[in-house]
Amino acid sequence: MNFLEERILKDGIVKEGNVLKVDSFLNHQMDISLFNEMGKEWKKRFEGKPINKILTIEASGIGIACVAAQHFNVPVVFAKKSKSINIEGDMYVAEVESFTHKNVNQVIVSKKFLSPDDHILIIDDFLANGCALQGLISIIHDANATVEGIGIAIEKGFQVGGRAIRNLGYQLESLAIVESMDASTGHVEFRQQ
Amino acid sequence: MNFLEERILKDGIVKEGNVLKVDSFLNHQMDISLFNEMGKEWKKRFEGKPINKILTIEASGIGIACVAAQHFNVPVVFAKKSKSINIEGDMYVAEVESFTHKNVNQVIVSKKFLSPDDHILIIDDFLANGCALQGLISIIHDANATVEGIGIAIEKGFQVGGRAIRNLGYQLESLAIVESMDASTGHVEFRQQ
Repeated sequence: MNFLEERILKDGIVKEGNVLKVDSFLNHQMDISLFNEMGKEWKKRFEGKPINKILTIEASGIGIACVAAQHFNVPVVFAKKSKSINIEGDMYVAEVESFTHKNVNQVIVSKKFLSPDDHILIIDDFLANGCALQGLISIIHDANATVEGIGIAIEKGFQVGGRAIRNLGYQLESLAIVESMDASTGHVEFRQQ
Repeated sequence: MNFLEERILKDGIVKEGNVLKVDSFLNHQMDISLFNEMGKEWKKRFEGKPINKILTIEASGIGIACVAAQHFNVPVVFAKKSKSINIEGDMYVAEVESFTHKNVNQVIVSKKFLSPDDHILIIDDFLANGCALQGLISIIHDANATVEGIGIAIEKGFQVGGRAIRNLGYQLESLAIVESMDASTGHVEFRQQ
């Protein structure tokens, strides 16, 4: 069992509807030392990849991506979920359905910040059905940039997102893969990696 | 002239309507080394304050706050702009008007993550009219926690936010205070600090 799995068992809370609350350390209150451990682990798993930029999506991916980026010495770009009047000019756009919020967002990245020369590591906090991730990959393809890999904190292994992405041949490194969870007992079962 | 002012002159773009675009290094693409310099500078300016937590607001405050937090060895909490179904239970709530997006958001923080024992440093990317900041301060007061200080990357010194906060007696440390800017020439004038 790794450091993130241990932390989930210690501080995560299983709720009805396959909700895993990790808001005390991952996506509302954020444990920056933990994020540094995660960055170090991804650096090891993506060793040798010519990563020059990290792409994430607002809001809860940003903190993890920024702290992890220090282990790669690269800038971070975050995809935005709605058009801001301060953003103008050409944008890469993808439609992303949110499992959490039950709606569809446009996800946008300025064309200035993705180019064919870019070798991208995608970082996000959760992977479930994979919609957000597919949107980010689609944007990277639109830019003719390269997806070097995908680093996820917690993957819900019982949902389809991870398998689809691995089937497509991407190197997907989820630091904790939840195989099942039970709200009545609070039990969380992780996939052996 | 400090490192952030220099960077604004180098890479910031002045647009009509007093818009300063810093999206190539601060709030869309993010320069993590720059954020570390900012964290180091805030650590110096808030030396001796018993800060045990950083509070910021999604989305563009999060990256700065997380990287800066490493210089204080404290966790970060980010206020969320709309109610998520994954957040339940008691929340501190404030209404915040967005200058950028021309709308009003509810800003929420879980009561679990703010207590009377907390000594908070607020971090955000921009200060203009101060609505977001007032919302965060109001939430900290609701929690009977203490505002130890406020660290802002870029303050628009020609708008009312900063003066109001300083008049209230808070230690507000803006790393760059823009006194005026001119979209036709691209000129940016900083306040001497």
